[in-house]
Amino acid sequence: MNHLADLVAALPAGRVLTDPDVAGAYARDQTFLPPGTPLCAVVAESRDDVVTTLRWATEHRVPVVPRGAGTGLAGGATAVEGCVMLSMIRMTAVRELSPADEIAVVEPGVITADLDRAARAHGLMYAPDPSSYEISTIGGNLATNAGGLRCVKYGVTRDSVLGLEVVLPDGRVLATGRRTMKGVTGYDLTGLFVGSEGTLGVITAATLRLRRAPETPPATFAAEFPSLRAAGDAVAAIIAAGCRPSLLELMDRNTLKAIDDWKNIGLEPGVRAMLIGQSDDGVPGAAERMAALCEENGATFVAATSSPDEAEELIGVRRLAYQAKERLGTCLVEDVCVPRSALPVMISEIEAAAERHGALISTVAHAGDGNLHPVFIFERGLAEPPPHVWAAADDVFRAALRLGGTLTGEHGVGVLKRRWLDLERGEVSGDVQRGIKNVFDPLGIMNPGKAI
Amino acid sequence: MNHLADLVAALPAGRVLTDPDVAGAYARDQTFLPPGTPLCAVVAESRDDVVTTLRWATEHRVPVVPRGAGTGLAGGATAVEGCVMLSMIRMTAVRELSPADEIAVVEPGVITADLDRAARAHGLMYAPDPSSYEISTIGGNLATNAGGLRCVKYGVTRDSVLGLEVVLPDGRVLATGRRTMKGVTGYDLTGLFVGSEGTLGVITAATLRLRRAPETPPATFAAEFPSLRAAGDAVAAIIAAGCRPSLLELMDRNTLKAIDDWKNIGLEPGVRAMLIGQSDDGVPGAAERMAALCEENGATFVAATSSPDEAEELIGVRRLAYQAKERLGTCLVEDVCVPRSALPVMISEIEAAAERHGALISTVAHAGDGNLHPVFIFERGLAEPPPHVWAAADDVFRAALRLGGTLTGEHGVGVLKRRWLDLERGEVSGDVQRGIKNVFDPLGIMNPGKAI
Ligand SMILES: Cc1cc2nc3c(=O)[nH]c(=O)nc-3n(C[C@H](O)[C@H](O)[C@H](O)COP(=O)(O)OP(=O)(O)OC[C@H]3O[C@@H](n4cnc5c(N)ncnc54)[C@H](O)[C@@H]3O)c2cc1C
Ligand SMILES: Cc1cc2nc3c(=O)[nH]c(=O)nc-3n(C[C@H](O)[C@H](O)[C@H](O)COP(=O)(O)OP(=O)(O)OC[C@H]3O[C@@H](n4cnc5c(N)ncnc54)[C@H](O)[C@@H]3O)c2cc1C
Repeated sequence: MNHLADLVAALPAGRVLTDPDVAGAYARDQTFLPPGTPLCAVVAESRDDVVTTLRWATEHRVPVVPRGAGTGLAGGATAVEGCVMLSMIRMTAVRELSPADEIAVVEPGVITADLDRAARAHGLMYAPDPSSYEISTIGGNLATNAGGLRCVKYGVTRDSVLGLEVVLPDGRVLATGRRTMKGVTGYDLTGLFVGSEGTLGVITAATLRLRRAPETPPATFAAEFPSLRAAGDAVAAIIAAGCRPSLLELMDRNTLKAIDDWKNIGLEPGVRAMLIGQSDDGVPGAAERMAALCEENGATFVAATSSPDEAEELIGVRRLAYQAKERLGTCLVEDVCVPRSALPVMISEIEAAAERHGALISTVAHAGDGNLHPVFIFERGLAEPPPHVWAAADDVFRAALRLGGTLTGEHGVGVLKRRWLDLERGEVSGDVQRGIKNVFDPLGIMNPGKAI
Repeated sequence: MNHLADLVAALPAGRVLTDPDVAGAYARDQTFLPPGTPLCAVVAESRDDVVTTLRWATEHRVPVVPRGAGTGLAGGATAVEGCVMLSMIRMTAVRELSPADEIAVVEPGVITADLDRAARAHGLMYAPDPSSYEISTIGGNLATNAGGLRCVKYGVTRDSVLGLEVVLPDGRVLATGRRTMKGVTGYDLTGLFVGSEGTLGVITAATLRLRRAPETPPATFAAEFPSLRAAGDAVAAIIAAGCRPSLLELMDRNTLKAIDDWKNIGLEPGVRAMLIGQSDDGVPGAAERMAALCEENGATFVAATSSPDEAEELIGVRRLAYQAKERLGTCLVEDVCVPRSALPVMISEIEAAAERHGALISTVAHAGDGNLHPVFIFERGLAEPPPHVWAAADDVFRAALRLGGTLTGEHGVGVLKRRWLDLERGEVSGDVQRGIKNVFDPLGIMNPGKAI
């Protein structure tokens, strides 16, 4: 372990955490996956710390796992045996926020919602808002290309990134992209790093695009349905009518029941699905129009409001979904995405898989994007999902692919979805991706075994 | 030349054009750059034709230059000595257009405006609209990541691409991306190909995102200014006020004069700049609001209209700009992009460079994006711009970079901007880009000497 002493000596005091319990606290994300035992954790406070750590790792061939807040749902930030867990959580500076250019330059440890709040102070917003935005970091969002509730209108994290600063595994610093809205000098390295799950390098700064915040509070509606299919049809109708919702979230009966059991939201017996939507265009009647489309598609109850408090209450229900499920057992959170028109069929496929295998699946969806999160809930204490759960998950993945969809809309492949990866991508794509990985990380020390 | 006979034999009759004059007609784009002499041109009609051609090229180490319509302004599609010019212009099928999923699957030879028209028949639109959209191809737009007039609101070509089919130099077929709105399986290969200027492979199909077409015709304004600076300030004010224009174009005195000399638009003596803008949000008074901001910033004349005919007339003036300049001499069309707030300063820098070097520069700008096209007009008949023009261009490039901008907002690097490339990208970026090129094209036969 002499090389560990070298690392401790090379970094400012306090950066390296060698106590196994302390380092172990950085070893996993939100999945059930059992982590390996890290050699240590490094809590970087500057780009130089990252450079020093990676140079050392290259010299000694030690694997490095970058880590934001560890809220990931694919196992991307779980420790591999003997690795350095490189935490970015203390690099929290907003280096610049320019209202005139509508951009911010931030460090990767900034909490997503903090950046949004900083932008709001100037009449701007940072659009990408994963449900985890109060606890996830910008760096983690970038590395997973996180989506969120607003992305049905504003796009995913990629759509808000102009440029990055990245430290490569050998310690070289790469600047990608630019500060301008457009630019085509050279290959799109920014896009390559977004969604690369820490396998190509460590993001140490990002130039992000902000947007004007809407001037009026959004108009919100909620609708209850007697079947998931009906809710899926309503979603299709809302999109087809050109409503441009800024949020369109679907919850199934199991999700609603979990929330009701916890917070008592007064769930009626016949309700099998709830749809919540918003419009922030400022067009009068936008929420009512979407609510009417829900009624036409069989909603048994609809409500529309432009009161910010009532809206917050409705959205609040949605934001409780994940914690409510966690109360019921261990969660395998999946993340399939299908072409929008296939949403109703995909919902039926999920219901059928649950029934076929006797699995408890509770689904929420960023419905406007066709992105579904079927959450497989299984007995707490088990190290891994039992076979019938994997079998149901397998059915769900294959159905999504059959419908022209993808394994993961926003959470990433991590470790969890590697088994299915070759079902989606062809052989040529796999070859090319390994070739690219090799350009950046010829020694294979960056987050090995993840993503590709 | 025996290997050429092999190619002729391997492809269906009529695909290979070996007559030097005929092949020569495919050898250049819209730049003045003198092309090399191609070995032949291949006019592909199917993916198989492309595969056959590239396999043969790999076997015989023959360079291949992909070509769309040849409207490029950076020299990307100019022949290198002894190459095959691979024209995609006959692959014009719209294979699918799904209103429910708001996507289209098209071949690369489809003319941009044709796809937009096909989409409009379903109440949709294809947003990216380079000024050349009646003559450029989707393949060329993808390979250059083309911008356009509407991209101030709807983004560049990249923002409308979900997936690609690409033939790699060795003839393997790669599928990238997906049909869904979101997805993060593996590295973003789609983004890597967009803007790669034909240096990594040949795009043979694309899954594109369509958008709802606005329900009402756009509201349009035009404003005349006594100085370019004032117009630049008006642009900044319009963006800062959150107006969300769907088009915001600036023309300088030289541009207006060239158009006036040709089409007699009644240009007044004191007018040094004109701004044309649109809003398609359907918000009443949107054009008037932008026009008022122009007046506050010194406009001497403003007009706002919601008549489609009057709007078409105004936009029509803008679309004439390039041809009007071509009447005056040979054009070196530049394409710098700066952070929006730097637009007025960049305009001053261009004027200063013109004066300093006695160059005729005539500028149009996609102003809302900070993307300027200073067009350097020089004597027809010269093989290349004379030294004073290059000197002025050099000043313009350096000023753009100093202001935090980029060499090229949308036209690409091609051959024309390679000289300045290293001023913008660092050494590490150059290394990485060459490494990526090598993954796809280890023999260096794909459009050699271009882009990177
Ligand atoms: C309650 C809950 C709700 C969620 N909702 C959403 C949602 O709506 N949409 C969504 O997309 N996700 C959602 N997630 C998943 C998760 O929050 C996101 O994936 C988030 O982007 C992870 O951020 P993080 O900072 O926690 O990253 P981590 O979990 O720490 O890391 C995630 C990945 O990024 C890499 N990484 C982290 N930082 C860096 C860096 N600086 N440089 C290079 N690589 C890095 C890691 O190696 C890992 O592969 C949710 C999670 C929870 C627990
Ligand atoms: C009047 C005029 C106005 C213009 N306005 C704009 C504008 O507003 N915005 C803008 O961005 N550009 C503009 N341009 C530039 C030009 O039209 C764009 O760059 C356009 O995208 C080129 O398309 P093309 O089909 O003509 O491609 P080409 O010129 O034929 O090729 C361009 C590049 O793409 C590569 N390529 C072409 N097809 C393929 C393929 N299938 N696979 C791989 N590589 C391929 C070529 O090798 C070359 O590098 C304008 C040009 C003119 C003449």
